[in-house]
Amino acid sequence: MDKIRAAVLGGTGLVGQRFIQLLDNHPYIEVVAITGFNSAGSRYGEAVSWTIEGDIPSWATDIIITRPEPDVLKKEGVELAFSALPSSVALDIEVNLVKNGIIVASNASPLRMEPDIPLLNGEVNHDHVVLVREQAKRGWKGVLLKNPNCSTAILTLFLKPLLDAYGIDKVLVTTLQAISGAGLRGLPAMFMVDNLIPYIAKEEWKIENESKKILGKLNNGKIENLEIDITSTTTRVPVIDGHTEVVYIKLANNHDHDIDDVVDTLSSYKSFPQEANLPTAPEAPIIVRKEEDRPQPRLDRLAGNGMSIVVGRLKIYNKNSDIWLRAVILGHNTIRGAAGAAILAYEIYKKYIDMGLIG
Amino acid sequence: MDKIRAAVLGGTGLVGQRFIQLLDNHPYIEVVAITGFNSAGSRYGEAVSWTIEGDIPSWATDIIITRPEPDVLKKEGVELAFSALPSSVALDIEVNLVKNGIIVASNASPLRMEPDIPLLNGEVNHDHVVLVREQAKRGWKGVLLKNPNCSTAILTLFLKPLLDAYGIDKVLVTTLQAISGAGLRGLPAMFMVDNLIPYIAKEEWKIENESKKILGKLNNGKIENLEIDITSTTTRVPVIDGHTEVVYIKLANNHDHDIDDVVDTLSSYKSFPQEANLPTAPEAPIIVRKEEDRPQPRLDRLAGNGMSIVVGRLKIYNKNSDIWLRAVILGHNTIRGAAGAAILAYEIYKKYIDMGLIG
Amino acid sequence: MDKIRAAVLGGTGLVGQRFIQLLDNHPYIEVVAITGFNSAGSRYGEAVSWTIEGDIPSWATDIIITRPEPDVLKKEGVELAFSALPSSVALDIEVNLVKNGIIVASNASPLRMEPDIPLLNGEVNHDHVVLVREQAKRGWKGVLLKNPNCSTAILTLFLKPLLDAYGIDKVLVTTLQAISGAGLRGLPAMFMVDNLIPYIAKEEWKIENESKKILGKLNNGKIENLEIDITSTTTRVPVIDGHTEVVYIKLANNHDHDIDDVVDTLSSYKSFPQEANLPTAPEAPIIVRKEEDRPQPRLDRLAGNGMSIVVGRLKIYNKNSDIWLRAVILGHNTIRGAAGAAILAYEIYKKYIDMGLIG
Amino acid sequence: MDKIRAAVLGGTGLVGQRFIQLLDNHPYIEVVAITGFNSAGSRYGEAVSWTIEGDIPSWATDIIITRPEPDVLKKEGVELAFSALPSSVALDIEVNLVKNGIIVASNASPLRMEPDIPLLNGEVNHDHVVLVREQAKRGWKGVLLKNPNCSTAILTLFLKPLLDAYGIDKVLVTTLQAISGAGLRGLPAMFMVDNLIPYIAKEEWKIENESKKILGKLNNGKIENLEIDITSTTTRVPVIDGHTEVVYIKLANNHDHDIDDVVDTLSSYKSFPQEANLPTAPEAPIIVRKEEDRPQPRLDRLAGNGMSIVVGRLKIYNKNSDIWLRAVILGHNTIRGAAGAAILAYEIYKKYIDMGLIG
Repeated sequence: MDKIRAAVLGGTGLVGQRFIQLLDNHPYIEVVAITGFNSAGSRYGEAVSWTIEGDIPSWATDIIITRPEPDVLKKEGVELAFSALPSSVALDIEVNLVKNGIIVASNASPLRMEPDIPLLNGEVNHDHVVLVREQAKRGWKGVLLKNPNCSTAILTLFLKPLLDAYGIDKVLVTTLQAISGAGLRGLPAMFMVDNLIPYIAKEEWKIENESKKILGKLNNGKIENLEIDITSTTTRVPVIDGHTEVVYIKLANNHDHDIDDVVDTLSSYKSFPQEANLPTAPEAPIIVRKEEDRPQPRLDRLAGNGMSIVVGRLKIYNKNSDIWLRAVILGHNTIRGAAGAAILAYEIYKKYIDMGLIG
Repeated sequence: MDKIRAAVLGGTGLVGQRFIQLLDNHPYIEVVAITGFNSAGSRYGEAVSWTIEGDIPSWATDIIITRPEPDVLKKEGVELAFSALPSSVALDIEVNLVKNGIIVASNASPLRMEPDIPLLNGEVNHDHVVLVREQAKRGWKGVLLKNPNCSTAILTLFLKPLLDAYGIDKVLVTTLQAISGAGLRGLPAMFMVDNLIPYIAKEEWKIENESKKILGKLNNGKIENLEIDITSTTTRVPVIDGHTEVVYIKLANNHDHDIDDVVDTLSSYKSFPQEANLPTAPEAPIIVRKEEDRPQPRLDRLAGNGMSIVVGRLKIYNKNSDIWLRAVILGHNTIRGAAGAAILAYEIYKKYIDMGLIG
Repeated sequence: MDKIRAAVLGGTGLVGQRFIQLLDNHPYIEVVAITGFNSAGSRYGEAVSWTIEGDIPSWATDIIITRPEPDVLKKEGVELAFSALPSSVALDIEVNLVKNGIIVASNASPLRMEPDIPLLNGEVNHDHVVLVREQAKRGWKGVLLKNPNCSTAILTLFLKPLLDAYGIDKVLVTTLQAISGAGLRGLPAMFMVDNLIPYIAKEEWKIENESKKILGKLNNGKIENLEIDITSTTTRVPVIDGHTEVVYIKLANNHDHDIDDVVDTLSSYKSFPQEANLPTAPEAPIIVRKEEDRPQPRLDRLAGNGMSIVVGRLKIYNKNSDIWLRAVILGHNTIRGAAGAAILAYEIYKKYIDMGLIG
Repeated sequence: MDKIRAAVLGGTGLVGQRFIQLLDNHPYIEVVAITGFNSAGSRYGEAVSWTIEGDIPSWATDIIITRPEPDVLKKEGVELAFSALPSSVALDIEVNLVKNGIIVASNASPLRMEPDIPLLNGEVNHDHVVLVREQAKRGWKGVLLKNPNCSTAILTLFLKPLLDAYGIDKVLVTTLQAISGAGLRGLPAMFMVDNLIPYIAKEEWKIENESKKILGKLNNGKIENLEIDITSTTTRVPVIDGHTEVVYIKLANNHDHDIDDVVDTLSSYKSFPQEANLPTAPEAPIIVRKEEDRPQPRLDRLAGNGMSIVVGRLKIYNKNSDIWLRAVILGHNTIRGAAGAAILAYEIYKKYIDMGLIG
């Protein structure tokens, strides 16, 4: 079988590098183009500051970086593009490609909240992918898939099985986020030695609002947002990769809950990506650790090749008539929270087509 | 006036060093003895691995470390001892000194929750110091004062004015604690580079329980604990000094609150230590910063010479009929949370005596 | 072919973990036993604090840790042991196993400088392995192989091709060593945030003296040490894995040297492990990077699966009649400098036997 | 006595902040103006990201930042300006002020190597200040004083007494430099967690060349450079403040040297700034520590208020007929290596005038 010819948009940044890394040896996707701005015309191997573990895949080294224009990409036979573009330029470029018939799976924030754009977090809301049926109304020949903000992707994967099993009244979350989330040059070193920063711009809004769409229900081809009450405080800590989140959840069903039951609910969680055996789906989306000192970013971020989240410190508090659950959760921000989620989104889309669920 | 001759117990550790540093140039206390175990017999300047900013005060350098025995200390005219002893040995040594007539102001955890031992956090509960009246019943000739756990000291100073102004229904806190809280050699470096640890042993119990006593009311010479509902998750991050805490508070009074009113309540908070102009009391116990990226440990931990806490990211959430307040707070764990709090506790005790409030 | 049954001695420490990781899927070695002291009797998966990237190989998880006694190991059919024992206990345990017929390839320092013990750094001195012929005189039924100190392994691999091509008069080296070199709990976190330590105990002696043996010539079955003049200063920096060394070399041959010639000499260096295609040998033992900001520990330490060293910042200084070469070199301290080197040492030994070069 | 009215040019950066901090309470200098580009018109307290220990001096908080123009500064009565300007803009601004009669003491690199510009490192070459006599020939009404590159300032202070006592044939130095040397936003955090960078642009040239001028002799009103042979490798490590340098020196006089004699030569070193009791001069310019694990940046950088250097790990190697000295030295890069050095330069200039040595 011929592989699908794909481009990575913004391939020199940290998320772009993850796309290249994760698509190495993909069973049916082949990267044939990489786009960049200042670097257009250079060999990828020379233009990139490769800063992730392991070497640049050898096939990527000699790709000549091009500009993200439909003609240029189509000349290479590109049908599919993964976008790691910065928000400031993503909208125009992505829409232009989609108009010209390219399928774009994008990590960039613009259009994430649009009603006809699926905001896909693999296991959690794969069925939202059918929203693409509406996109033809925009006059698009291609389709646009979005994956969520990194912290939101990790959080909603954790919340989904709890929501289904127990219902959720309220979530209060504090994140301890990795430096790579700010990009290769986004955060000065002076801020991250013997220090932390108690604020990340726009992050709290995204967590609190994207979650509503992701956890929403598909009804008559539209998403009904879930009015889940999430409050978040986002901080930056001196960690390279891996976002940690301390989560307090007020459960909705006020009958007694057993912690073993919660562990089982989380550990046994599987969904469409596992059932359909999608290439980028982790075997276990949620791994529960019982040691009190886990999860830890350096030790746990690559669980499930970076596509699983790791959950620890589970505890139930019965207070008055309220039931609260506490957890510390961890996920890889540039894999589960970015490049990996976008690839999984495309794999879902393709599977739905293969199954005849999308026209 | 002759100064009060004091000893520092366990003077070579991180908290011991802070006692030496903070007592340099104290108006009425003079350190004349330092105790240690393995180091007894050595000059302090040689025995200590001085690891805090600035030099060892020159008077301390030549003090010969002694064992913490009443006879030895009394020969030096010691009336007062500040204890930075590890929990494992503190109980016996401190009680032995108190029995022999020495006043001990201690940072060690044993006996903190005893009904006749004041657990003093300066501004918050100075009036609890009168509990010492009960200590004679133990046959003690001296008195024993305790200061709270570091995270608890910082948290309760923040909670006190809010409790008084608005009432508090519930507190959910996540701490990001500094390495120095684990002592000079308590935490391996392998854990603190590109990593964090989501757990600190015993810390959550202390926060949730010591707070009840500290915020409790003195009634007929006894403390009635406040049944405040605090849930905490404690983590360790790669920061040398300065504990950060992300705090969510459900306020009790469900009328609309104005954030400016909260700012004012916190900023204007003063108490007995300020009114009595105690030497170690900070001018402003609570400093509110309005920049979104503050407080930061490296920049803010020395505010008020390490005795103030710095508060930022204040936000009120009106959700349904509930009012929640969010804040990020920061305090110096070995000053406000340890040595400074113990010195302030003694200053309160002395002032109460001078004012005739304790016999 | 049945695999050789092997034990890892001291398998829970950082070097022990690397042995387990590197021996996963080895073509002809199979780990069937792991020894430990305090942990004997426990499952490896529970006893170990697995702190290296990736998961514990599943076969290792269920191995029950035993004590390092010959009878116990022989009952498991163990013929070969890789030692990650601490120096303080290694001597007795290793010799006891060797006396009882087990082949021990050891990373521990005792006996490294003995004339009949090969101190093997793969490519550099594979021929020294024939020293094992002398070991029968000790009444040993097994054999003992040693690999060098971590910094020395990295340095001598770099020096060897230069020595052969140009001769070396003098070496002045400054190391910037990773935390993992001190073991999992060897270095307090307080020392490694906003700080470095300009001293590592015993390290400088090892670099200056082990190099003489490793670079020595085999002559009539004995090693004649090379009287190479190496001066070293060793420092510890906040890096998890990967030792960096800044090296100044006074070359012996005073004719003009061309930097391209040096690059070529280093880049093209291959030796017996490459020629014999040994499983743990890196394809390129020395990788030269031309970017001015390389090598960097986080980006380069896993080159060649951690068995290559990466060299950068090459520069020749012609001063008066002296020729000096400057380089910054980097190698993975627990792979190239420890577990990987020991495995490669055994592979050399086995190949020499297969080739009939050792009886 | 009225104080001299001074400006700080580029006062919001890291070196600018140090100027403000160090000039707080200066006996005869008073800061009345602060300049900036983007921040002109703002209050200093609002425009600055104050990132050094302690608070902004209260007098500085309300200064309105102005543009660095002669008229503007003269209106404020400014006679003296300390420059923390970036190299890219320093030349024009500084020369313009000097032409207009202002005395500029500058940390910026342009013009450092000009024959009529003193490149002053306090104790080392205070007598070079008389070069200012030549500056009138440029048509300047003011004078321009420069201080050296940070690493060079620390190194030459260490070399000077050794040069005088023993002569120096060759110096090979490896630096481990702090992040603050790259400015507040100069270095991305991704580079400085679990990593180091083996290269700092232009730094090696400065060390190797500025040293020749600084250590040069004044002869007939001109500097004769010392043809000292220095080779350097500069690296960046995850430390906030404090440059560490590992120095190997080949001494010129080949008679036996005693390490105690070296210690004494360094420890007893004093010069004009100490004799003249200049306000910013440290009591002991060079502090020798005998503990093997010192100097350490976090513990030693503030020695002598950041104006002393701390020296450790002294060792003499007698090899063949050569004598080499090894040392690890540490100095505060933004104090001794920048703002403090510039202030001391001005204090020397003023003292020379007061003593009638400059017209």
